[in-house]
Amino acid sequence: MAKVQIGSDRIYYPMPCALVGANVEKKANYLTVAWFSMVNPEPAYLAVAMNKAHFTNSGIKANGIFSVNIPSANMAEKVDYCGLVSGRKFDKGAIFETFYGKLETAPMIKECPFNVECKLIQTVNLPAEELFIGEIVAAYCDENFLTDGAPDITKIDPFVLIMPERQYRDLGKNVGGAWEIGKKLINK
Amino acid sequence: MAKVQIGSDRIYYPMPCALVGANVEKKANYLTVAWFSMVNPEPAYLAVAMNKAHFTNSGIKANGIFSVNIPSANMAEKVDYCGLVSGRKFDKGAIFETFYGKLETAPMIKECPFNVECKLIQTVNLPAEELFIGEIVAAYCDENFLTDGAPDITKIDPFVLIMPERQYRDLGKNVGGAWEIGKKLINK
Repeated sequence: MAKVQIGSDRIYYPMPCALVGANVEKKANYLTVAWFSMVNPEPAYLAVAMNKAHFTNSGIKANGIFSVNIPSANMAEKVDYCGLVSGRKFDKGAIFETFYGKLETAPMIKECPFNVECKLIQTVNLPAEELFIGEIVAAYCDENFLTDGAPDITKIDPFVLIMPERQYRDLGKNVGGAWEIGKKLINK
Repeated sequence: MAKVQIGSDRIYYPMPCALVGANVEKKANYLTVAWFSMVNPEPAYLAVAMNKAHFTNSGIKANGIFSVNIPSANMAEKVDYCGLVSGRKFDKGAIFETFYGKLETAPMIKECPFNVECKLIQTVNLPAEELFIGEIVAAYCDENFLTDGAPDITKIDPFVLIMPERQYRDLGKNVGGAWEIGKKLINK
């Protein structure tokens, strides 16, 4: 097996899919994102990169508040739609039922099983994107997606984006327990 | 269906798994990460959050260089191991074959199908973590994992970490084409 340098300088990995919510001019707007990650455990921070041209960015900066909503695979069409059109021309809030939580101005999507609302902590200015770092101040889950009070990923049925295939994929089989299956290699 | 606020302030989503490589005191060291994302398209930047206590961080800061290596599901045990033990006590470089590319000091894992090497652009200091933002300067793929010259995710067979289940999962079925399946909702 030989390594070859490939032309693209992207990194390919399963990218989680979510919808970022913010009020823009007092109206709920949602943008599809695949470039986000948890970045700090306590306090819980997440970071999301969004192209500077996006309408949603202005709402995040105006309010200092946003939400991240995790959709199920059966919502893939709506999620894709929210990445295809701009809130400047389309009322993306209209295709979902919006609810508000503790922060009062972070619109969240009711049909997404899992939602968090965030207070903007820091914005990192990158060449094309703004990287919004937010503190998660509250998390919500639909009770139908809980097992013993905890979110159940199998019930939530989230999906990822894979490139360069431009394809959404749901989750497959269990390949082992984390912080567990590697133990057998210790001191080997 | 009722939304309930859950105790945890984490966000749950499928987290991609990778190994970050850096030379520490001239020796290759690897750390398992699940908190990373692309953050800018051109130039291609990625960001990876790593707890400040990690041994690998010192190598990234000393050299200004690191790698990100995407493993296959059949490497899950080794990936888990690299998240269980510290390079301060264990020689994690010993369980892989390391190769170097263009930057010469970014150790990469040969058996990982896909690898990128990064130049450190910015470090964002968070309460518990350092968020390293790196520019991807070269990407490598094993030729056995290419289809028509492009990385083939089905062949690469990457995996994700899901919480709170503490479980690794591979990818499941195609749930639709990205920038495609949402088109039918435009102007509906």
